[in-house]
Order: sequence, then C-alpha cells, then structure tokens
Amino acid sequence: MTGLRAGERCEIDAGATISYEYASDGGRTRIGDDAVVRHGTIIYGDVSIGDGFVTGHDAIVREHTTIGDDVLVGTKTVIDGRSEIGDDVSMQTGVYVPTETTIGDDVFLGPHAVLTNDPYPLRTDHDVVGPTIEDGVSLGANTTILPDVTVGARSFVAAGAVVTEDVPPDCLAVGSPARFRELPPELRGGNGR
Amino acid sequence: MTGLRAGERCEIDAGATISYEYASDGGRTRIGDDAVVRHGTIIYGDVSIGDGFVTGHDAIVREHTTIGDDVLVGTKTVIDGRSEIGDDVSMQTGVYVPTETTIGDDVFLGPHAVLTNDPYPLRTDHDVVGPTIEDGVSLGANTTILPDVTVGARSFVAAGAVVTEDVPPDCLAVGSPARFRELPPELRGGNGR
Amino acid sequence: MTGLRAGERCEIDAGATISYEYASDGGRTRIGDDAVVRHGTIIYGDVSIGDGFVTGHDAIVREHTTIGDDVLVGTKTVIDGRSEIGDDVSMQTGVYVPTETTIGDDVFLGPHAVLTNDPYPLRTDHDVVGPTIEDGVSLGANTTILPDVTVGARSFVAAGAVVTEDVPPDCLAVGSPARFRELPPELRGGNGR
Repeated sequence: MTGLRAGERCEIDAGATISYEYASDGGRTRIGDDAVVRHGTIIYGDVSIGDGFVTGHDAIVREHTTIGDDVLVGTKTVIDGRSEIGDDVSMQTGVYVPTETTIGDDVFLGPHAVLTNDPYPLRTDHDVVGPTIEDGVSLGANTTILPDVTVGARSFVAAGAVVTEDVPPDCLAVGSPARFRELPPELRGGNGR
Repeated sequence: MTGLRAGERCEIDAGATISYEYASDGGRTRIGDDAVVRHGTIIYGDVSIGDGFVTGHDAIVREHTTIGDDVLVGTKTVIDGRSEIGDDVSMQTGVYVPTETTIGDDVFLGPHAVLTNDPYPLRTDHDVVGPTIEDGVSLGANTTILPDVTVGARSFVAAGAVVTEDVPPDCLAVGSPARFRELPPELRGGNGR
Repeated sequence: MTGLRAGERCEIDAGATISYEYASDGGRTRIGDDAVVRHGTIIYGDVSIGDGFVTGHDAIVREHTTIGDDVLVGTKTVIDGRSEIGDDVSMQTGVYVPTETTIGDDVFLGPHAVLTNDPYPLRTDHDVVGPTIEDGVSLGANTTILPDVTVGARSFVAAGAVVTEDVPPDCLAVGSPARFRELPPELRGGNGR
C-alpha cells in the first residue's frame, strides 16, 4: 500500500485494495469525489480517476490508467493498464480492456465485451496496440474487438459480433466477422444522453 | 453483515461473504440445508435460497434473487439480482445473469454463457427485461442470449450461438444469429433426469 | 491450509491462497523456483507446478493439475483440475480450462478463450472429455473449443471462432463453426520462439 489520495464522500469497502504496489517506485492511486469502490476490487498505484467513480466487485484496474468522470467499472471487469478512458463510460460485468486501449466519452461496454491488443501472439516480434473506441459507441454483450481497430463515433456493435476491421461512424456492426449497416432509428442517440 | 439464516449442515467458507449489506434497510440472506459456499463468494442480503445449494469460488448473487433447491452457482458466475431461478439448475464457470431474468427448473448454463437485459444501452429511455429460460433448457458454452427472449422448454442452444429471437420448445439453436433445427436424438431428454 | 512446498525466490502475495484444502486427505501444492502468485489467486492442494510460474489476480487452479515451466495463468483464469499443461504456456485474462484437458508446450490462450468438456450436459450419461491443444497452438480471444476436439500443432484459431471438430496442424481456423484455411505467413512460427 503506497497511499491513496481520495476526494470527498468516497466509500471504499474494507475488502477493496487501493494503490496496490506493482513496483518499488510505483506511485499512488488518485480518486476524485463521490467514489464507491466495492469489496474485492483492486486498483493499482499510478491510476488517476475523476469524480463519480463506481465499481462492482472484483474489478481490477492496473497501473498507468487514466479514467474520466462518472465511470462505472462493473463486477469482474479487468482493465490491464496503460489505457485512457473518457467521461461517462459504463463497463458492465466481465469486460476486458487490454493495455494501450483508448476509450472516448459516453461509451457503453456490454457484459463480457473483450478488447484485444495482440494480432500475432507468440508468433512474431511486434508492438501491441489496443483498439480505439470513439465517443458515443455501444459494444454489445460478448463482442470481440480485434487489435488496432477503431470503432467510429456513435456506432453500435451488436451482441456477439467479432469486429475485425475499422467500423465507420454511425454504423451498426453485426456478425462474425462483423458487417456494417446503417444505424436503425432506435439505435441512434449514442451520445449517451 | 446483517445476519444469515442458514439451515443445517451448511459449510460456509470463512472467505465467503454472506448477507452483504447493500442498503441500510436491506434484509438478510436465507439459505436452506446442506449448502456449500466457497471462498471468495459474495451473497447479498434479501436473497432466498433452497436446500442443497453449492457455489464455486468468487460467485456473486445480488439482492432480491430467489433460488430453488439443488442449484449450483459456478466459480465467478454473477447473478445481478431481482431474478427468479428454479430447482436443479447448474450454472457453470463465469456465467452472467442480469436483473429481471427468469430461469426454470432443470436448466444448464454452460461456461461463460451471457444473458442480457438491455436492448438499447444508453440510447433511449426504456425498461430492461432479461430473458426467460424455460424448464429443461441447456445453454452451451459462451452463448449470448438477447434481452426479453424466451428459450422454450427442453431446447438446446449450441456453444457460441447468439440468440436474437424466441426459441421454440424442443429445438436446437445454432449459429449467429441462431437458426433453429429439430433437436437430434442425442440431445433429447432435457428434463435434467 | 495443508502446507506448501515452494522453491526459491518465490513471491506469494499475502492475499493469495495456496494448498486450498479440497478434501480431508488432499495433498499440498508444489511450486518450483521463481514463482509470482498475485493477490486473490487460489491454488488447490495436489497441484504440481514447475519453475517460473506467474499468475495474475483471482486465478484459480484446482486439484490434480500438472503445470510445466514458465507458465502464466492470467487474471481470473480458471483451471478446473485434473488437467495437464506443458511448458511455456501463456493464458491471458478470463480463460476457462475444464477438467480432463491436455495442453502442450508453447501454447497461447487469448483473453476469455473457453474450453469445454461436456457434449450433452444433463441429457445423457456419458464421460466428460476436454480438448487437446497441441504444441505451438494459439487460441484467439473469446474462442470456444468444443469437447474432445484436438487443435493440431502450430494452428491458430481466430478470435471469436467456435471450433466444433478437430483442427489439422498448421491451419488457420476461422468462424462459427470454424472453417480451416492454410496458415498465412505472418501467423507461422507458432513454436513460441
């Protein structure tokens, strides 16, 4: 435990672990006002989080992650570190966010959505690059997003889809591999408001 | 901890959390006879469970859930609350059950099966409605069931299928989106016995 | 706690549980040199592990599992026991390995890969048989591998694929159900080196 700098009115459950020390020179966790962190959740040092942060149980946020305001990290969701996450992001249960991922504002990640960052695991020398999820995107339950893919603003990825290439803005992505259609009226409004 | 009313011959691991207090006026957990609750599992208050209950590790059962007799909640399975679950239900590892879900008797949920309750996340104002899984159904590994869908009695959803509309009784549902076929002989007998 | 026989230079986090007692006559956990076991991980008794073992958080390894040298068991990965795992195996976050599974050397299991062992859950009397993953195989993120399937040496299963029959060696398996293609040049080299 390397210390926690938390804001006002934060409820940190006694069964949560904050500022988990991952390196001898690692820093602390910074959390804004009005946070709720539930039992079993682990937040590493060198994580910076805005106001209105809420977690479920057994969530994990690793080092060098920056998180905006009003973000929910659901039960058993894992954020593996070195990622940027915007404001008003809702991650449901069991989501996986690898390193080097960028997530915008007003984004929804459904239960068990899996993002990836490694196109050739164990096969060649290469850098890992996570996906970019632009503002207003919704990812359905159990979707899979391949490395280095961009999901364009306000697009909606249907449940179970496997996204293997960039999704334009304002599209519905469906299937495996995902094909793109015009966004139907009932799925517009993906600015989260 | 708001108290636990447990039956006879219950083994509650010291590393489990029962009657997790989710609200200042929340009630207790009630568990019948012969329960085994393993290390890391959290059961909220206002959950009512029958006899012969078994959990793996790190399972979570949230408030206002009713569970029948002889139910297994596997390791890391999450039941998000406000759901009804029958007798003789086996949930394997890493299953997700959202709020407002109904599960009958003699049901099998394979590893990483994901049920959902929100058709238009963050897009429009609407109620969430989970699926209905009727008696004798088996859901294969890593299946995805969309909101407000009914899977009919004794039907079998193949591994990896994405179910987007109601499944009639006595069918095999395969693919993404799932198509329906007659149930082959070796998959009949889905009354759990 | 029935005792741990660990090698030299092992870092076992105080929040990890080793030699979890699953039976009154169960044995201990044996771990080689240079292990790192992180907070929340549970390793049962009667598990034998080689040198260079690393886990993430909240991983679970159940009884009668044998694991070789230089194996990573990622955060929230569950190995349900009675399985054989070789050397130089990397399991990412949220992988599921059922009982009676065989995994060779130099294998990569991507995040949320799900292996299964039960073809007719609750339907008929039958033995469960997990898959065989041969040397040098990579399984992509969120893949599903059906019971008793063999994935041949150096093959690569694409993200989101559902593998329903044996995969020959040196193939790319894609889709649901997975179809097989020649392995493209950038995915050769699946010996992990």
